[in-house]
Amino acid sequence: MRAYNFNAGPAAIPLPVLEKAQKELVNFQNTGMSVMELSHRSKDYEEVHNRANSLLRELLGIPDTYEVLFLQGGASLQFTMIPMNFLPENKTAHYILSGAWSEKALKEAKLFGETRILASSKEENYTTIPSFSLEGVEEDGAYVHITSNNTIYGTQWNEYPTSPIPLIADMSSDILCKEIDVEKFSLIYAGAQKNLGPSGVTVVIVKKDFLETARTNVPTILSYATHSKNNSLFNTPPTFAIYMLSLVLEWVKEQGGVKSIQKLNEEKAGYIYSAIEESDGFYKGHATKGSRSLMNITFTLPNEELTKKFLQEAKDRNFIGLAGHRSVGGCRASAYNAVPKEACEALANFMKEFKNQHK
Amino acid sequence: MRAYNFNAGPAAIPLPVLEKAQKELVNFQNTGMSVMELSHRSKDYEEVHNRANSLLRELLGIPDTYEVLFLQGGASLQFTMIPMNFLPENKTAHYILSGAWSEKALKEAKLFGETRILASSKEENYTTIPSFSLEGVEEDGAYVHITSNNTIYGTQWNEYPTSPIPLIADMSSDILCKEIDVEKFSLIYAGAQKNLGPSGVTVVIVKKDFLETARTNVPTILSYATHSKNNSLFNTPPTFAIYMLSLVLEWVKEQGGVKSIQKLNEEKAGYIYSAIEESDGFYKGHATKGSRSLMNITFTLPNEELTKKFLQEAKDRNFIGLAGHRSVGGCRASAYNAVPKEACEALANFMKEFKNQHK
Repeated sequence: MRAYNFNAGPAAIPLPVLEKAQKELVNFQNTGMSVMELSHRSKDYEEVHNRANSLLRELLGIPDTYEVLFLQGGASLQFTMIPMNFLPENKTAHYILSGAWSEKALKEAKLFGETRILASSKEENYTTIPSFSLEGVEEDGAYVHITSNNTIYGTQWNEYPTSPIPLIADMSSDILCKEIDVEKFSLIYAGAQKNLGPSGVTVVIVKKDFLETARTNVPTILSYATHSKNNSLFNTPPTFAIYMLSLVLEWVKEQGGVKSIQKLNEEKAGYIYSAIEESDGFYKGHATKGSRSLMNITFTLPNEELTKKFLQEAKDRNFIGLAGHRSVGGCRASAYNAVPKEACEALANFMKEFKNQHK
Repeated sequence: MRAYNFNAGPAAIPLPVLEKAQKELVNFQNTGMSVMELSHRSKDYEEVHNRANSLLRELLGIPDTYEVLFLQGGASLQFTMIPMNFLPENKTAHYILSGAWSEKALKEAKLFGETRILASSKEENYTTIPSFSLEGVEEDGAYVHITSNNTIYGTQWNEYPTSPIPLIADMSSDILCKEIDVEKFSLIYAGAQKNLGPSGVTVVIVKKDFLETARTNVPTILSYATHSKNNSLFNTPPTFAIYMLSLVLEWVKEQGGVKSIQKLNEEKAGYIYSAIEESDGFYKGHATKGSRSLMNITFTLPNEELTKKFLQEAKDRNFIGLAGHRSVGGCRASAYNAVPKEACEALANFMKEFKNQHK
């Protein structure tokens, strides 16, 4: 029986995608080889690679003025590559802190140059996206960095600012969950293991103009230009992960694209948020209402004992990955694109039932 | 029909490994999830992760004084991480050049400090492993870097020196192909996509002593210490690639371990080298006899036209990946661990047949 997979990442992958991958795992399109065994310089693989690229462009409406890259190393390597490439000596990198991942991104930037915390909601235990002003950032600002969705705290940016200097976003945990205006950003990056596929590939969407401003004294493999010039084939890419990405993107398209997925995500998160709201305070959401995430729904129960019991009973009923991150405690349901509506309905029903038994 | 896969990498994966992965792709060990959907913090995944680690230790005889790490970014990222971590300002990194990949490794080291070419066979078009002396390297040497097998040229180190300073080897294309004495090295690295599994994971075997000498002002994700302290779970690892690695290692063990694999590899390469030698000069090996690779067998035909014809007929008979690298021309058969003996026999027979027709 298929689990109700609410893992925070690596996370659920659409069942039809897994079934397709399974079917052709040993013999990919009659090549007599697995897709893993294809040379990354072969036509068969290049088609997979380029299909992933063009599907992502189509689904997110990425203009031709942007490059789409497939890299390795996760968002954590991006924390380093961004300042290494885009923070020159005479400028300052601005970071808006909305959670632990923003902090990590900032920490790495400090190794390369001047940084400034433009805003932070740390004092509110990251229950909200902080308010901020971009006034004056153009004086010495290299870029503004934000984390669009905060997996640990269950908060998400609802609207993106129009920034006078390049805006960079870590969208690892909410890319493709809703429509966005790519042109507001100079660089978007996302580890695949939440909404895009398995871990091991990181998508970077970068404006060509911005790419041209990059520093040149950068190690070859850590320079975005290297990958841009080589269609992400400078060295051997993680071919199987990119193949899985292409299948996930095809699936998103079959669902009607990002707009339909967004509607479904609103419905899915809605079930669980309603279960919280209608519990008369039995469940308490961690995020403030205006900053609630569509992807990660965080909540606590009245006490530690009930939390433990809830998690144990959930496990017995086939719900996976509901324990909250240790820094927040409580519970977290990650309802990424591939988590079916039925799983969210089932969780909401279980939450109601559990509440009625223990209130 | 299964192809005779002689790709240089990504390359053949053992059929039983692919079949096992296929069988459990949608439902891994009754978890109701694919291995790709498991949290990297879950017990089920950690077992996979740790099994890969302990199997590699067992198969290569890696002592407890060494760490085994699973990283991303391929050997190309190691070219940067090595000098970033292990080349201090007052020392020199020594490189022995035996091919294009050694050159690339050297190029990145130059960004970080002093380097010296200890020996090179570039003038002989890399037909051989260069002779060298390690005398005096201890004066200012940080480490000596070698490439144990040269995919493009088809050469391989037969014996490793006992170095007075740390010896570092890129073993991407021949790790596990034969028994080695790990204790001769301070650091060994290998991209997985030749002998270990699919692309997307890089194995690093590093001596703990040596690790302690690493620089500390290194970006977190590019510091070996980060990964060593966290059992390669600092950030989300490429879980599926590591799972495949664990299956490939199990397969190697089932074959009788590295010693048996080595014997088989000698037999496999033997078929093809014999076909070259017994061709009365129709086929010419690129590598000199003493430097011949067990893994990549490079050879040329009398002229361009025959080469083209050979490659076309080979393709028609289901042989894949036989074109030589553009810098060497001719043909290359990569007979990695997972390439079955039958494929090598079939290739040798085809080579004889083709020679008899066109001599």
